Amino acid sequence: MTIDRLCPLICSMTQRKISDREPINIKKKISKMDSEKSKQLQIIADRLRIQSILATSASKSGHPSSCASMADILSVLFFHAMKYKVSAPKDPSSDRFILSKGHAAPILYAAWAEAGLFPKSELMNLRKIDSDLEGHPTPRLNFIDVATGSLGQGLSVAAGMAYVGKNIDKASYRTYCLIGDGESAEGSIWEAMHFAGHYKLDNLVAIFDVNRLGQSEPTALQHDVETYRKRADAFGFHAIVIDGHNIEEIVQAFDEAAATKGKPTAIIAKTFKGHGLDGVADHENWHGKPLGDKAASIVKNIEERIAGSNVPAPIAESPVEDAPVVSIINIRLSSAPAYKKGETVATRVAYGTALMKLAQNNSRVIGLDGDTKNSTYSEKIKKVSTDNYIECYIAEQNLVGVAIGAACRDRTVAFCSTFAAFFTRAFDQIRMGAISQTNINCVGSHAGVSIGEDGPSQMALEDLAMFRTIPGCTVFYPSDAVSCERACELAANTRGICFIRTSRPATVVMYDNEELFQVGKAKVVRENPGDKVVLIGAGITMHEGLKAADTLASNGIHVCVIDPFTIKPLDADTIRAHALRVGGKVLTVEDHYPEGGIGEAVASALSTDTNITVKRLAVNEVPRSGPPEALLEKYGISANCIVKAVYNLLQ
Amino acid sequence: MTIDRLCPLICSMTQRKISDREPINIKKKISKMDSEKSKQLQIIADRLRIQSILATSASKSGHPSSCASMADILSVLFFHAMKYKVSAPKDPSSDRFILSKGHAAPILYAAWAEAGLFPKSELMNLRKIDSDLEGHPTPRLNFIDVATGSLGQGLSVAAGMAYVGKNIDKASYRTYCLIGDGESAEGSIWEAMHFAGHYKLDNLVAIFDVNRLGQSEPTALQHDVETYRKRADAFGFHAIVIDGHNIEEIVQAFDEAAATKGKPTAIIAKTFKGHGLDGVADHENWHGKPLGDKAASIVKNIEERIAGSNVPAPIAESPVEDAPVVSIINIRLSSAPAYKKGETVATRVAYGTALMKLAQNNSRVIGLDGDTKNSTYSEKIKKVSTDNYIECYIAEQNLVGVAIGAACRDRTVAFCSTFAAFFTRAFDQIRMGAISQTNINCVGSHAGVSIGEDGPSQMALEDLAMFRTIPGCTVFYPSDAVSCERACELAANTRGICFIRTSRPATVVMYDNEELFQVGKAKVVRENPGDKVVLIGAGITMHEGLKAADTLASNGIHVCVIDPFTIKPLDADTIRAHALRVGGKVLTVEDHYPEGGIGEAVASALSTDTNITVKRLAVNEVPRSGPPEALLEKYGISANCIVKAVYNLLQ
Repeated sequence: MTIDRLCPLICSMTQRKISDREPINIKKKISKMDSEKSKQLQIIADRLRIQSILATSASKSGHPSSCASMADILSVLFFHAMKYKVSAPKDPSSDRFILSKGHAAPILYAAWAEAGLFPKSELMNLRKIDSDLEGHPTPRLNFIDVATGSLGQGLSVAAGMAYVGKNIDKASYRTYCLIGDGESAEGSIWEAMHFAGHYKLDNLVAIFDVNRLGQSEPTALQHDVETYRKRADAFGFHAIVIDGHNIEEIVQAFDEAAATKGKPTAIIAKTFKGHGLDGVADHENWHGKPLGDKAASIVKNIEERIAGSNVPAPIAESPVEDAPVVSIINIRLSSAPAYKKGETVATRVAYGTALMKLAQNNSRVIGLDGDTKNSTYSEKIKKVSTDNYIECYIAEQNLVGVAIGAACRDRTVAFCSTFAAFFTRAFDQIRMGAISQTNINCVGSHAGVSIGEDGPSQMALEDLAMFRTIPGCTVFYPSDAVSCERACELAANTRGICFIRTSRPATVVMYDNEELFQVGKAKVVRENPGDKVVLIGAGITMHEGLKAADTLASNGIHVCVIDPFTIKPLDADTIRAHALRVGGKVLTVEDHYPEGGIGEAVASALSTDTNITVKRLAVNEVPRSGPPEALLEKYGISANCIVKAVYNLLQ
Repeated sequence: MTIDRLCPLICSMTQRKISDREPINIKKKISKMDSEKSKQLQIIADRLRIQSILATSASKSGHPSSCASMADILSVLFFHAMKYKVSAPKDPSSDRFILSKGHAAPILYAAWAEAGLFPKSELMNLRKIDSDLEGHPTPRLNFIDVATGSLGQGLSVAAGMAYVGKNIDKASYRTYCLIGDGESAEGSIWEAMHFAGHYKLDNLVAIFDVNRLGQSEPTALQHDVETYRKRADAFGFHAIVIDGHNIEEIVQAFDEAAATKGKPTAIIAKTFKGHGLDGVADHENWHGKPLGDKAASIVKNIEERIAGSNVPAPIAESPVEDAPVVSIINIRLSSAPAYKKGETVATRVAYGTALMKLAQNNSRVIGLDGDTKNSTYSEKIKKVSTDNYIECYIAEQNLVGVAIGAACRDRTVAFCSTFAAFFTRAFDQIRMGAISQTNINCVGSHAGVSIGEDGPSQMALEDLAMFRTIPGCTVFYPSDAVSCERACELAANTRGICFIRTSRPATVVMYDNEELFQVGKAKVVRENPGDKVVLIGAGITMHEGLKAADTLASNGIHVCVIDPFTIKPLDADTIRAHALRVGGKVLTVEDHYPEGGIGEAVASALSTDTNITVKRLAVNEVPRSGPPEALLEKYGISANCIVKAVYNLLQ
């Protein structure tokens, strides 16, 4: 067995330097690993390398060199550091592992096979259309908590899990996240580092696999592990620099991490991409390529190195079974909505009230926000308990990532909120959330031009389009306080991502407190046998629509007004029935850009209907600052503009 | 005049510590500011405070306390550090200033008024619908390069400007970016820090206004300026900690920054939110609030402090006029497309070829990528000159931000590329780009399930929806290599954001090399008098559509096949004309989710047409890994599925 010894002097010096400068409270004495176990872990690492090569050769695609750099780390993680039950990968008390560099999936699959979860022969089905061993990990596999593959997202999720483990579950399980050096250029990594450092998540370990090579060229920092160390240290981590191919150093680092209190730990592992693969290690142009012709000889070489050893993998230590049993089903508002019809209440305020009531009903309902809690009104949940609120500061990617982590394995029902416009910051996290089968609820306030003077940077005008694209996403757009509270209650009990769009201005309460709401069921708010047009609005434009309907009615023109309640799924049946009833004319009006919002949802839902036309009013350009009413008028979505549009339709 | 002296001992100690540890090459000796000028700058700072209070009081909204913390810094910047011509704010040789914390717009407006660009009386029109002095800065104002207001984006833009200044313009102008401490939690700030540090942008100064208070509570780091210093240092900046209300320290810091070579400078300014405003300074719950009743007495208090001084603001030093004259009009491919009809070429490869040809034609055409240049083929531009390529590593928010900075003031024609899926990471930057009136071109490869085995995390299935929402965005979706090259050429000459969607698989060249393409003009690819259906596809689904058309034709069923070329603007006239010709049946097929893509674009464009129906085929769920052909089939967008859909339409 040959283990390359990479700069052991520099690494150990760096490590000492850290310890000298910043003494850490290390509770348990770290014993030197016995050489037998070390050898065993090294052999397993090489077996994982072999499986990664064979699987990617079979699939003729994949990233064996990215697997090889982390093989030794993964061997130590799975067969020394982590506590888990192979029989129950989702066990709530088990340690969690997030592979942020999801393209190294084959070695993760190999580790679980090595642990005995499934036969190693399964690994040869990598990337086949009928196999759940996909190119990047997804929770179609029972040992994957969240999908990875879009880089830089794993640490936020891991931090969310660690936050819940430490502060809500108050359990022993630990969370490990392995990060590629290339992806550590993603800002989301540093948002997560900031979060984890601030909250002193000492049950979290971030492992940086510093293999020097990105996809198309060396990374910016290459093997400058000292800079990684400085960064991790500055972000509040206990940073340990190691040779990532030295089993004993890896073991010691994980033991040190476990003994470190009051800080998360970052293990900066200097590694080589393709380490252990002759002719590949540390060479450029091997990213994302199976080894082809070289595979057989490289595998043979590794097999010779481990001398055909069939030493079994050590059984992982069992977890401490101290994660509480949690139920997140049938969550209800602690009391029904209590408004007076006709009073004015902003839906964002109703959101805060609903969140508070849901948390009163179930202590696993949590709120997360990015320093806008006094605008979104998520701060109201703190009245129930400050434990139910996680301040994520101004870092929306991490906000969503932490929520995904907090919600996964059904540990919590997470509502994360910010201005709806700023969820665009986290579109990739939301997109990946769908692949992760996440169950989070996103609540975006300050929809559209009706926010007024703050101007276009703060106005959400593309959020409906964004959330509508997400598979399985339920998009609520409540038009009053009653329906907003019920939207929140429904969201708490609806699987998949939910989005609730709230508005800044106070608007009239339209519904009785007893009104029942369902996902995918519209409300017909105005109906008259003489209706000539179906008018569809939501939020502020529902109220402009009602004003327009009044004006039109006073002139003898009746319009049917429909509140869609959910934009996805859209209640096409109700809309269609009334459209046909009134003679085929539908008018949509929305405080949103014309693309992907209510108008297109309605137009496409009715696109195969003949004899129905859909005219759409929306904000057609980048708006300006100004008073809300003036902006609604200027951008063509005010009551006045709706009246005009109806007259035009009837000409 | 009272100037609070904040922890001068700690600050100067910290500063010394930095200098001791990391000697910086300071070329010019920093002279101590004469006390007269210092006093003058302090008076101006207070005048800026007064204007901020008055303007936000007049508008009854805005952020005076956020202005007050940076007043002293801004006074020194505008009237000591920066070189510019008030007569020509967009002058290419002038220093640039980006206010990343855009909510402090009133004080930026006040500084330009103080400099004499417009009368101070104009400031009282803040946030009025007919004033360009919006709630957050936008380039409707001639002194604003890019819009800010969505936090954490300014530094990427500033880094892009500085990169161009140093490496492409090779000019003397410097770039300053003022960042709020709250927004420094945004990962995009750290992406930009990483970028600026890596490229040693010593013409860039990042100023952190550490005023301790966020919107809803204190920031995570509050006044821990030493942690800011460590972070900036670890990210490759020369970090200077100062008392941000001490004019002399501010002056010295800017002078030191100007003299610092080989590194960008970060000035960590310890400030107080609302500094100088009695009863407001350092108090919570004053974010985003005009001073109301308190305004008059606070203004009076400041006026007394400056003893009614009318000392004129110093005239800014003139810039060194060394920025070259640049022309970015009429950019052409250096040679026409040169393909053989029928050969197979991936559009992503054609993109690389086009980018190279455009750079051959105009040296101001640049390519930027996030370490995917060997997949997007943007690397081909490096064959023209490595100077035309900016590697942004795996940090897509910064990639887009740098592109916006590089393109602004028409210094370059920037093409930034990554996998189309990963542009979701930068949706907020793209959204703000539209408000910034930016001119960047985004090229996203690896569209849809046709990428195959890498799986859903790498598949763009929502990118068309995202870019379609952007006001003024031109969305190209070329279906072959010829049209892709022409799309790039058109994009180089089209104002606003352009998006070009490219595909991974090699597909057949459909067009003659001489074919002419225009924005908003579709191509009718197949036409027969007996056509029964209009079939619209693009990219891979165009080719599946053509196969389907062949199969159908062999069975005597003719379909009209239309290549929309641009999805926005969509050539509704051509589609409508042919739809009516064939009897009203339109079938769209796209490698995209059903929402916001081709199908909805077509359905909504035809939503007011009676007698036209639009049936849509799209990817309806999160896809899996697998071979491209199998995935096209499984998700219902293959030639086979199109044939079935046509038969169903004709039943």
